[in-house]
Amino acid sequence: MTGLQLLPIPGIPEVRPGDDLGALVADGALASVGLLDGDVVVVTQKVVSKAENALVAIDPTDPHAHRRLVAGQSRRILRRRGDLVISETHHGYVCANAGIDVSNVEPGTAALLPEDSDRSARRLRDVFVHRYGIACGVIVSDTFGRPWRRGVTDVALGSAGIRPILDLRGTNDALGRELAVTEVGLVDELAGAADLVMGKSSGIAAAIVRGVEPAWLDVSDLDVDGVVPNIVRSPAEDLFR
Amino acid sequence: MTGLQLLPIPGIPEVRPGDDLGALVADGALASVGLLDGDVVVVTQKVVSKAENALVAIDPTDPHAHRRLVAGQSRRILRRRGDLVISETHHGYVCANAGIDVSNVEPGTAALLPEDSDRSARRLRDVFVHRYGIACGVIVSDTFGRPWRRGVTDVALGSAGIRPILDLRGTNDALGRELAVTEVGLVDELAGAADLVMGKSSGIAAAIVRGVEPAWLDVSDLDVDGVVPNIVRSPAEDLFR
Repeated sequence: MTGLQLLPIPGIPEVRPGDDLGALVADGALASVGLLDGDVVVVTQKVVSKAENALVAIDPTDPHAHRRLVAGQSRRILRRRGDLVISETHHGYVCANAGIDVSNVEPGTAALLPEDSDRSARRLRDVFVHRYGIACGVIVSDTFGRPWRRGVTDVALGSAGIRPILDLRGTNDALGRELAVTEVGLVDELAGAADLVMGKSSGIAAAIVRGVEPAWLDVSDLDVDGVVPNIVRSPAEDLFR
Repeated sequence: MTGLQLLPIPGIPEVRPGDDLGALVADGALASVGLLDGDVVVVTQKVVSKAENALVAIDPTDPHAHRRLVAGQSRRILRRRGDLVISETHHGYVCANAGIDVSNVEPGTAALLPEDSDRSARRLRDVFVHRYGIACGVIVSDTFGRPWRRGVTDVALGSAGIRPILDLRGTNDALGRELAVTEVGLVDELAGAADLVMGKSSGIAAAIVRGVEPAWLDVSDLDVDGVVPNIVRSPAEDLFR
């Protein structure tokens, strides 16, 4: 392990519904930091939602419009405080306001989460692999709060071609005993790392994590690739629902 | 922003109580990847606990020993399932088994969390700044699980000389409107990023994040520096306690 690079991809124009996002990201990368076999490309949810037209009109003069929208995107409300709603979305994510965002979109518009972020990641990866000939992993990232700790961090909504969980079961610690802590939330650490070069206000919509272990991109033994089947906990398995 | 580097620091020997950890980390860095003004040095809790002798004997034949130890390090038990206890530690962290770890320590021994991880980070930083002349930030990291999502990720237990939270209030989004999501858990994203080059089993105990925004290392306007005052949520503020 000689180190990793976190590289922002500049030059991605404002994304509009129907845009070929894979090409915009790949061309932005090729014109700047390059795009290499073994890269992990992290693309923010916002531009994925825009390209997929996961946008809805919202009346900014109606104080209840946002709340209705959040309820419609949720299968279960967990907590409410003032304007803040923590819910479980139809996809299974637990987050604030069902991931609906009104920043960085046109006024009077709200961006919903992609319908299926793992599928979104697969489609982006298909562009990189089949059209550009680059074998890379793809993560669709979003910014979530969390219990216990202040501050938001970026996590993975969807992924393709990169192990969501790094399973260290059966490996030994530095003193030769089997490790107790075994499953690393790899795609979430990658998404958070990528956010360090994207920022929230700089208009950088994608980044590359370069130099990861090649084994991290081998998903051939997974029953199903992606974040939702591998990372999202079912309520029954969760100690806090 | 031209990108960040995540650099593992090799060559840190097995750490023993009383060792000068700051010197071990700095010498390891200087002999390999270097140590530069503006670097963020991330050091894992395990070696901090060892250097500070936060180790206790534990009878591996006593099935209740571990549970008693966890209870003694906790001010409140939140959930219990089988051998797993989620508690609020005396420091205020919410984590599994009060952060007590029996991997990567000698058999019959358990490593507790440092008494005050922000102080630990400050002391390490004092070594780097005053003995080596390097103005860097320091994070003490640990591996925590989280609700809603499978997999553990590294977060910051303590920090010094690096903004725990990046406050984007008052900045505008790419379309010029004020951002709604405002406070980024910067030290947690940095800790998780550093874990990508440390792994759990490779014996790498520290890493450098190189190339961060210089403003991230300016903590002069904070009332108090550190993770506990800035990141750890009080129960009253938390929607899930």
